[in-house]
Amino acid sequence: MNLPKQNENLISESDRNSLYKIIFSRRDVRGQFLPDPIPDEVLSRILYAAHYAPSVGFMQPWDFIIIKSKTIREQIHNIFKLAHNEAAEMFSGGQQETYRSLKLEGILESPLNICITCDKKRTGPVVIGRTHIKEMDTYSSVCAIQNFWLAARAEGLGVGWVSILHEDKLKDILNLPDHIVPIGYLCIGRVEYFHKKPELEIAGWLPRTPMEEIIYFDQWGNNNQNYSSSLVNQIKKDLGFPEYSVKEQ
Amino acid sequence: MNLPKQNENLISESDRNSLYKIIFSRRDVRGQFLPDPIPDEVLSRILYAAHYAPSVGFMQPWDFIIIKSKTIREQIHNIFKLAHNEAAEMFSGGQQETYRSLKLEGILESPLNICITCDKKRTGPVVIGRTHIKEMDTYSSVCAIQNFWLAARAEGLGVGWVSILHEDKLKDILNLPDHIVPIGYLCIGRVEYFHKKPELEIAGWLPRTPMEEIIYFDQWGNNNQNYSSSLVNQIKKDLGFPEYSVKEQ
Repeated sequence: MNLPKQNENLISESDRNSLYKIIFSRRDVRGQFLPDPIPDEVLSRILYAAHYAPSVGFMQPWDFIIIKSKTIREQIHNIFKLAHNEAAEMFSGGQQETYRSLKLEGILESPLNICITCDKKRTGPVVIGRTHIKEMDTYSSVCAIQNFWLAARAEGLGVGWVSILHEDKLKDILNLPDHIVPIGYLCIGRVEYFHKKPELEIAGWLPRTPMEEIIYFDQWGNNNQNYSSSLVNQIKKDLGFPEYSVKEQ
Repeated sequence: MNLPKQNENLISESDRNSLYKIIFSRRDVRGQFLPDPIPDEVLSRILYAAHYAPSVGFMQPWDFIIIKSKTIREQIHNIFKLAHNEAAEMFSGGQQETYRSLKLEGILESPLNICITCDKKRTGPVVIGRTHIKEMDTYSSVCAIQNFWLAARAEGLGVGWVSILHEDKLKDILNLPDHIVPIGYLCIGRVEYFHKKPELEIAGWLPRTPMEEIIYFDQWGNNNQNYSSSLVNQIKKDLGFPEYSVKEQ
């Protein structure tokens, strides 16, 4: 067979460094949105990045609902407020106070919201690779969201994922058929600035987990085998790699 | 508050083009693995890319199980064969024949397998942003997988996601506790070459969906509003954008 091929060396060291810079400077943006509209040329490129995500059985289960309407966004904002109040009640004491002080969405301030969905019925009932793990199609839509997020960052735009919503109410507002699952509800737009670290890390809510604590070898629980210590040493040595990658120009 | 900030212009046009090149040349690799070991310096960078994925409530629910053991990989390969045969029976006629002819995993040929998991109990029962949509933690682990995949491509390495497995058997082999969900079982390694297009597209299994067919405005089903036609026109104009981005040097 004469299949089209591409060389593995297509990507340069400079391309590689650019990717790391984008990955490590990406943020979940809630509070710094500017109202400037997003040019079509920019949105089109970001959507292509999402559409070229991996998908199980090449089913491409996603749709993109692009929400500009103030009325629709106000309805979404209302169901956010409802869920947000319910969520606050689940935390106790000082945590509840901190939770209530956090800005967790930019639904109305961002110029555009986008819902990325998963069509459970696309390409029929039997899908290559989804025969045994039924969630694979939703995972494909999440890959599209991550591509979208990185492309937006590369275009200088912030993205925030709003997940404090009742799914059934969100489906009602967006008029989604039963077989369409809303996977990510995203706010996107220009921002005043990007935080240098995740906001929950800055706020002291949770620390970054040291990576050597979440690496195992061959099986769960094995983190102490001789043949693997060189990787763990490398990981410890690279502790500043994410920060260094962003600073590199 | 004096929060650390970074400028939105940190990312250059060249960085942006590099990201698009990597996104559009990423492939799900099954058949072109080379046995060369992956240097620790490279694997460490890729793991950092995964670890800096977005996560709901900053819970970082992932662990990374790095599988070199031939014995473990043979066990995984056996449960793949079992599930693969069951899957084949779900297709009928010519589709079944085509399905059986597809190479769908590189478990033994790749130098390394990695399982990226989701710890449903990490950081306690109440997680910011997971209060209403319970799958948000698994989605975070998928974001880590997509970062991992793109970083691997940027390092010249191929990655293939093996999903034709019984989850309970996979958990047994990897010795995973009940609350740890295996999200992605990945094969990674150097490759002879990358296909220019997804293999299922090349094989004629399914075509790439035209993007204008999966865009809606404000609500499901609205794809014909006047204010939005300029975006759809832009999308049609950019049809060759993914291919063009890869060719650009």
